[in-house]
Amino acid sequence: MAQGNLLYAQSGGVTAVINATAAAVISEARACKVKVLAARNGILGALREELIDTSKESAASIRALAHTPGGAFGSCRFKLKSLEEDRAKYERLLEVLKAHNVRYFLYNGGNDSADTALKVSQLAKAFKYPLTCIGVPKTIDNDLAVTDVCPGFGSTAKYTAVSVREAALDVAAMADTSTKVFVYEAMGRHAGWIAASAGLAGASPEEAPQIILFPERVYDEKAFLAKVRKTVAKVGWCVVVASEGIRYADGRFVADAGGSKDAFGHIQLGGVASHLAARIKDELGMKVHWTLPDYLQRSARHIASKTDWEQAQAVGKAAVQLALRGQNAVMPAIVRTSDSPYRWRIEAVPLTRIANREKKIPNRFLRKDGFGITAAARRYLRPLIQGEAPLPYRQDGLPRYIELKNVAVKKVIPEQT
Amino acid sequence: MAQGNLLYAQSGGVTAVINATAAAVISEARACKVKVLAARNGILGALREELIDTSKESAASIRALAHTPGGAFGSCRFKLKSLEEDRAKYERLLEVLKAHNVRYFLYNGGNDSADTALKVSQLAKAFKYPLTCIGVPKTIDNDLAVTDVCPGFGSTAKYTAVSVREAALDVAAMADTSTKVFVYEAMGRHAGWIAASAGLAGASPEEAPQIILFPERVYDEKAFLAKVRKTVAKVGWCVVVASEGIRYADGRFVADAGGSKDAFGHIQLGGVASHLAARIKDELGMKVHWTLPDYLQRSARHIASKTDWEQAQAVGKAAVQLALRGQNAVMPAIVRTSDSPYRWRIEAVPLTRIANREKKIPNRFLRKDGFGITAAARRYLRPLIQGEAPLPYRQDGLPRYIELKNVAVKKVIPEQT
Repeated sequence: MAQGNLLYAQSGGVTAVINATAAAVISEARACKVKVLAARNGILGALREELIDTSKESAASIRALAHTPGGAFGSCRFKLKSLEEDRAKYERLLEVLKAHNVRYFLYNGGNDSADTALKVSQLAKAFKYPLTCIGVPKTIDNDLAVTDVCPGFGSTAKYTAVSVREAALDVAAMADTSTKVFVYEAMGRHAGWIAASAGLAGASPEEAPQIILFPERVYDEKAFLAKVRKTVAKVGWCVVVASEGIRYADGRFVADAGGSKDAFGHIQLGGVASHLAARIKDELGMKVHWTLPDYLQRSARHIASKTDWEQAQAVGKAAVQLALRGQNAVMPAIVRTSDSPYRWRIEAVPLTRIANREKKIPNRFLRKDGFGITAAARRYLRPLIQGEAPLPYRQDGLPRYIELKNVAVKKVIPEQT
Repeated sequence: MAQGNLLYAQSGGVTAVINATAAAVISEARACKVKVLAARNGILGALREELIDTSKESAASIRALAHTPGGAFGSCRFKLKSLEEDRAKYERLLEVLKAHNVRYFLYNGGNDSADTALKVSQLAKAFKYPLTCIGVPKTIDNDLAVTDVCPGFGSTAKYTAVSVREAALDVAAMADTSTKVFVYEAMGRHAGWIAASAGLAGASPEEAPQIILFPERVYDEKAFLAKVRKTVAKVGWCVVVASEGIRYADGRFVADAGGSKDAFGHIQLGGVASHLAARIKDELGMKVHWTLPDYLQRSARHIASKTDWEQAQAVGKAAVQLALRGQNAVMPAIVRTSDSPYRWRIEAVPLTRIANREKKIPNRFLRKDGFGITAAARRYLRPLIQGEAPLPYRQDGLPRYIELKNVAVKKVIPEQT
């Protein structure tokens, strides 16, 4: 039988569906009579003893949470270092967990978070504190090892493919007298999964996006500009999707090339799309437009993938079940059993196989010319954007998103001096 | 009884729903046994005698056209000048219309297009050629006189309000350790309607967006930065929405301030959001993110407003009816009869009341501090984003958008030498 409380924390950049995972964790734990505390602003909330009592939220609120983007309890960019370097912090964390009778720790994040969950589990063992630690996968970057896909990615992929398709229709209509080249900047500092998903917008290399730039390939300006020129000559216009993380042969980020000072001596922020657009304008003399969707691509719950939404909930539910079964230091991973129709199941994978690893796009997914995706990539990506996650709208035309009450748990540890 | 053909042309920037207008024009004309020709790439297609025979498209295709963004026959940025300056072009246009037995000319665009339609009607009269000219309203900028709203605006407004709401949830979740200020750049060179629509994302001045910058107000950097600082101190974070057209007191566009050369001597393209973000970072030392949705905001049919979609179709249908009744040189305008529930009807307005005028945001819609919208603005804007326009999706997760066959009409005028 379940005993003790469960602590749930979100980590790193939020997504359109991380709250769906949270909602599933809370629902499943409620069904098993386990109380869920949430850390305010991720692991920092745990260290500061800033905890939220989710039992104060109604069942209707938790249902609404499942379709609300952002991070309902707050997340953070904060990585615990090694046990040696950050020992005091790890011990403080254990102290807080003990003080609130937390026996299950669910950390919802990427490979950094898997590493933290693993270390917490090791320390608990060393201190003989009975704690089950579970990593729960989340990241739009899709760079986690082992799992078929990371919840969050499918929705960003769908946003990207749909947005690129729509913008391409716009560009095609205007190219005769206006914009010839459109550049779309996708998130992805080290892995080009999001940019790759844009490839789903078209069915062939002639269809938009005609050019995708991946961080897995060296950026060669000459080859790129030649490809733009050729595409415009053939199609009449060209859509480019660029990962923010593309680099020159010498390792410099292209985005950094844009960093400069303006006429007033103010620093200008860099950006890949802005830089590429300027180069196309300068070198090819074509009218260019560009977009930087930035956070819109990871918060656009209104165009979330149903597949992604279901997987986000499935890993949340499975995480609670694994925790209550005492399966320590694992992550519920998604295992694909069929491409078409897409079939998958959840499997527990040791955190040691996830922590601090990074899954880049395999070679067989990238076209020989480096500017697009292969049929194998399409087979992998296509199911991930399938289906439209249901979303209720208010009468005023906005989605029915919720803000939780987030009632604080009373602190019990004396303030440190 | 109807006699002769109808020529339909799209003009200027396309929208998420201009094809819904096109579909309504074609459906209504078919019902009245009138053949619709479409000009390829707008008025240029008419001048070049590049016409499309829409009768070659199936009824199913026309139904699909009603939910496809972009401009199905192509649009253009090309303005005919005065009758004196461009007389040869106007005469050429009449020649093409005569050659293809066009008796109804529907020009779907903004105030420039209304002006062109007006001039064509005047010239036809002078030449005693029986032609009925109708302006059909379209523009995301919402700057047309007389009409309550311009088809295209409501969908961009909905995209804007929803996107800003979603991004704000993201920023709120991360602000403790990451981004404190988020800047969203909205289209609108002269009128701030799109930026104003972002105000619907929050219900009070404390809710995001806490700051909106309108081209109708002089941009005062000091006051702006002070407001950002105050908001972050109070709320913990801040969302800013800026019109691309904001200017300093001396008339310079803020966007132009960003124009500069990078480390390689390459010209950097300017931008309001990028500039504001850099200033916030420099002066307030806060982490900033920014977005430039660019074309995404006018092509995002996936989040189109149902109200807007219905109005886009209504003006198309009414335009055909007006044309067949011989009501020359008018535009079907939308007349609001009630705010809540929103009620409206179509009324024919002389093009002379539309041509070359520009509707800016009235003072009573802007908050006294200049950083937000008033209750009156909310009453005006709210109904325009109400309802979700239906959109069928394919099994692969992309919207079911169509590309028409666009069969060319045989040219009959000998090539000019």
